[in-house]
Amino acid sequence: MTLKVYLSGEIHTDWREQIVEGAKGLDASFNSPVTDHAASDDCGVAILGEEPNKYWHDHKGAMVNAIRTRKGIEDADVVVVRFGDKYKQWNAAFDAGYAAALGKSLIILHGPDHQHALKEVDATALAVAEEPHQVVEILRYVLTGALPA
Amino acid sequence: MTLKVYLSGEIHTDWREQIVEGAKGLDASFNSPVTDHAASDDCGVAILGEEPNKYWHDHKGAMVNAIRTRKGIEDADVVVVRFGDKYKQWNAAFDAGYAAALGKSLIILHGPDHQHALKEVDATALAVAEEPHQVVEILRYVLTGALPA
Amino acid sequence: MTLKVYLSGEIHTDWREQIVEGAKGLDASFNSPVTDHAASDDCGVAILGEEPNKYWHDHKGAMVNAIRTRKGIEDADVVVVRFGDKYKQWNAAFDAGYAAALGKSLIILHGPDHQHALKEVDATALAVAEEPHQVVEILRYVLTGALPA
Amino acid sequence: MTLKVYLSGEIHTDWREQIVEGAKGLDASFNSPVTDHAASDDCGVAILGEEPNKYWHDHKGAMVNAIRTRKGIEDADVVVVRFGDKYKQWNAAFDAGYAAALGKSLIILHGPDHQHALKEVDATALAVAEEPHQVVEILRYVLTGALPA
Amino acid sequence: MTLKVYLSGEIHTDWREQIVEGAKGLDASFNSPVTDHAASDDCGVAILGEEPNKYWHDHKGAMVNAIRTRKGIEDADVVVVRFGDKYKQWNAAFDAGYAAALGKSLIILHGPDHQHALKEVDATALAVAEEPHQVVEILRYVLTGALPA
Amino acid sequence: MTLKVYLSGEIHTDWREQIVEGAKGLDASFNSPVTDHAASDDCGVAILGEEPNKYWHDHKGAMVNAIRTRKGIEDADVVVVRFGDKYKQWNAAFDAGYAAALGKSLIILHGPDHQHALKEVDATALAVAEEPHQVVEILRYVLTGALPA
Amino acid sequence: MTLKVYLSGEIHTDWREQIVEGAKGLDASFNSPVTDHAASDDCGVAILGEEPNKYWHDHKGAMVNAIRTRKGIEDADVVVVRFGDKYKQWNAAFDAGYAAALGKSLIILHGPDHQHALKEVDATALAVAEEPHQVVEILRYVLTGALPA
Amino acid sequence: MTLKVYLSGEIHTDWREQIVEGAKGLDASFNSPVTDHAASDDCGVAILGEEPNKYWHDHKGAMVNAIRTRKGIEDADVVVVRFGDKYKQWNAAFDAGYAAALGKSLIILHGPDHQHALKEVDATALAVAEEPHQVVEILRYVLTGALPA
Repeated sequence: MTLKVYLSGEIHTDWREQIVEGAKGLDASFNSPVTDHAASDDCGVAILGEEPNKYWHDHKGAMVNAIRTRKGIEDADVVVVRFGDKYKQWNAAFDAGYAAALGKSLIILHGPDHQHALKEVDATALAVAEEPHQVVEILRYVLTGALPA
Repeated sequence: MTLKVYLSGEIHTDWREQIVEGAKGLDASFNSPVTDHAASDDCGVAILGEEPNKYWHDHKGAMVNAIRTRKGIEDADVVVVRFGDKYKQWNAAFDAGYAAALGKSLIILHGPDHQHALKEVDATALAVAEEPHQVVEILRYVLTGALPA
Repeated sequence: MTLKVYLSGEIHTDWREQIVEGAKGLDASFNSPVTDHAASDDCGVAILGEEPNKYWHDHKGAMVNAIRTRKGIEDADVVVVRFGDKYKQWNAAFDAGYAAALGKSLIILHGPDHQHALKEVDATALAVAEEPHQVVEILRYVLTGALPA
Repeated sequence: MTLKVYLSGEIHTDWREQIVEGAKGLDASFNSPVTDHAASDDCGVAILGEEPNKYWHDHKGAMVNAIRTRKGIEDADVVVVRFGDKYKQWNAAFDAGYAAALGKSLIILHGPDHQHALKEVDATALAVAEEPHQVVEILRYVLTGALPA
Repeated sequence: MTLKVYLSGEIHTDWREQIVEGAKGLDASFNSPVTDHAASDDCGVAILGEEPNKYWHDHKGAMVNAIRTRKGIEDADVVVVRFGDKYKQWNAAFDAGYAAALGKSLIILHGPDHQHALKEVDATALAVAEEPHQVVEILRYVLTGALPA
Repeated sequence: MTLKVYLSGEIHTDWREQIVEGAKGLDASFNSPVTDHAASDDCGVAILGEEPNKYWHDHKGAMVNAIRTRKGIEDADVVVVRFGDKYKQWNAAFDAGYAAALGKSLIILHGPDHQHALKEVDATALAVAEEPHQVVEILRYVLTGALPA
Repeated sequence: MTLKVYLSGEIHTDWREQIVEGAKGLDASFNSPVTDHAASDDCGVAILGEEPNKYWHDHKGAMVNAIRTRKGIEDADVVVVRFGDKYKQWNAAFDAGYAAALGKSLIILHGPDHQHALKEVDATALAVAEEPHQVVEILRYVLTGALPA
Repeated sequence: MTLKVYLSGEIHTDWREQIVEGAKGLDASFNSPVTDHAASDDCGVAILGEEPNKYWHDHKGAMVNAIRTRKGIEDADVVVVRFGDKYKQWNAAFDAGYAAALGKSLIILHGPDHQHALKEVDATALAVAEEPHQVVEILRYVLTGALPA
């Protein structure tokens, strides 16, 4: 059993690297959005032409990014969504809703401060974790049956 | 053609009432989550028993609310999601993602300040409006072909 | 919003009547399997011809009952599954699994003694209740937003 | 043609090993839940944090196990569900219902004593066997056309 | 609960009338293909223009009939397929396969002579009957719980 | 049996009126896009705000029109697509492809000059007609079994 | 592009071998039912135990065969269904209907005598051929673009 | 992540070769219709027998081509549809509609002259490009996160 895992959400810390590193040796493959903030914002106009209006600038980029995001979520068995401490992060919550409607197994990752604000999102998850190593432990258990020592 | 419209998101202003009132006479039906904040927070424990832990208190309520929310979104032709000025509103973004994955026609309603933060959400919508009366005008046009005078 | 509710499981107490009675005045419709135990066991051979072998006797009846059960679950918005104190009740758990895979909102109803044995089933539910009146209160809240006094 | 087989249900005898051993040389791959009873019960709290309330202890574990179970059933061509002599085994019946709703080919494996109690479950199966070697023989026939000597 | 029933297959006896008549008073609605043999054969060319080649003559008619047949089967809860004593009746078997793939509840109706030839079709049905009155009795039982006196 | 019919395509002749008029008395309901060319082009900017760039002007309108078009096609049993003598009419062919992928029964309506250019589209249809009255005759036959006199 | 092809229907001539042989070198894989008539008839009772009643003897076998048949059809891109000169061959027509409902590309293979009787089945096919070599030529064209010399 | 890309539409320029060439080294696979115009027109009659009527000649070919086209689109993650300067190109628009209904990520490729005529098609796309190299740049960005220098 290979688990396909999509890592959605917060892009300003190294939580994805921690999970990928921790999961070495497990039969899991990882996918994620483009996490280079500038590239992600500008990809639409850089490729398809400038837009003077910021709204359409953003729109063109969001559409191009959706090609990767949808593919990543639709191919995944497990979607991990990380909410960081800052920013609105509505795209993270959007991905969680998208994944939930497709019946994906959701793992939500956030600190205790966000519990009340994320209660509807957490309620659709199969696991709510605070730290990346817990996600690794879940993947290890799911794939091998082994619990943390 | 009857349009079934689900009104998701912000619950602290009267935008739902404005839309329902403005759409009088149109062949549209409206549905929405429970918008009584206290009831929505406490429904789980009020019916199914107290929880000393706030996380499970919230969880039980979010699950009961999901019975209504899922039904509302799954039955809808059009899902309108309103983002207000305050709070995280992750459940609004979650609903948008859920509706998008089900192929619903999305209308996103928010002020100009949120444009950049909502770019991924807006990019999945068929219309992005700033004011409730614009939603009414869309519904009127879709149902009757009439544009605003 | 009309909620279509399917009442699956235990057939030896009046829990269905309590829910239907309690929900009077709510915009809910109810459906259930044939709850006459003898008719349910014998319907296959009574209509389609005797079987000397008890296995095929049972089989024929289970197939005919499935016409009603599948229709009831597939049409439902909410599936309530009641586990009583006695018997194996594997068909109740089967219905819960069937409903879960179809994405129905599940309410599981059972006494505290069955908590551990039903943990996988409960984990797929949006509400786990002990008493029929709690199901009524959930339906009332979901349909009207009103909590128990 | 490779057959993907999921082995659900009873975890106290070596029926899974018998099938996997017997099917050596056939183009079949096998998957199953975590069958270490203690790990399966405790995985939620071991990874995600203790719960003083036994219900939530169980709930957290059941959710984590569901990541593996759903993946296993959804990927499978054939789902074998074994009912042993003891315990409620509601999760086995739940898996059977879940698999049936997804249109999987079901093989139910149980002793003659459970025939009446399992009649609804058996009625959705493509084969009802009493012994693990019969499952092997079915897989051999399906994959190669060879019947038992 | 209203049962939508599609009556497919043999068109040279009055079995449809017997079922519709027998089911009077039950909450069932019936649909069927056009049973006027000549109209059914010629509808394509009568409306869309003559074809000198008999193959395309037949083809045009079969396509027009498919508008009705598909709608009837897709809308149905229960599909009854009757095999008579004569002719190839491949369209009946085709309809059975089509309905089976859509997950419809199938009732197959045929005399004992066809048992072996129809074994694959019968194996997908929830009931195999010999006489139209048995179909009525199934519908009555499914809708009301009443068995034949 | 009520047939829901969506009338897509050419908007410069009265073919829709001819079909609706001709089908009076039949159990059919009709839906169509907004056929007021100017309103259809300008609906986006009229409701949601001006766009200096013609591309986004068009885009906004096309998105709003999609709310009606998708609903119309998704609700339909039969989708009639008319190709007129002029213009590119790519939206007509797009609607045909959209409807085909959803498994709708397609009727294509066009003059003999377009046969070669429309061969791929015609090949997915259940009927290819040249005149609106033929569509009426198909609907009458499908609903009542009556052929043209 | 690899084409997965399922070869359904008549089992008394070597048409499958002709197609598989002719398609050597093409990127196509083939699957089929068990074509050993005796094994196919007896597989159920040979593995799962004798049945004195011929109906249940047949039923058990048909169910076991369905494990292979369903998998073969559901995995296929193209389903070829061959109708021979003899027998009822209802299972062939059933497979065609099953495949059609799943949206598979159908190729029907039969002699000219069966044209009228198979008109509904042919009308759902993308190709109707008379000889196995034509199926090979279709596969070659679809995979390589090369037409017969 | 491997992206499966289907290249639909215009067949008279080398845009497909430009994209495939430009994408060398990327983890993308490409598929397309048969682009030999004569073979594509005649494949039906060349394999399945002559038709004196041009309509059926075209029809037979369109059906055979559909085996490849459907497979290509259904397998794809991304569907690129190119509209050239000439011809009706209704099959290109049909493919776009078919792909849109299946939820594929669409990239539309056309010159500025077609903007108004393609507005409904463009409105369903995630990117609208004018030149083949832009499609390559999108694929590179989606697969690697790298923007054009």
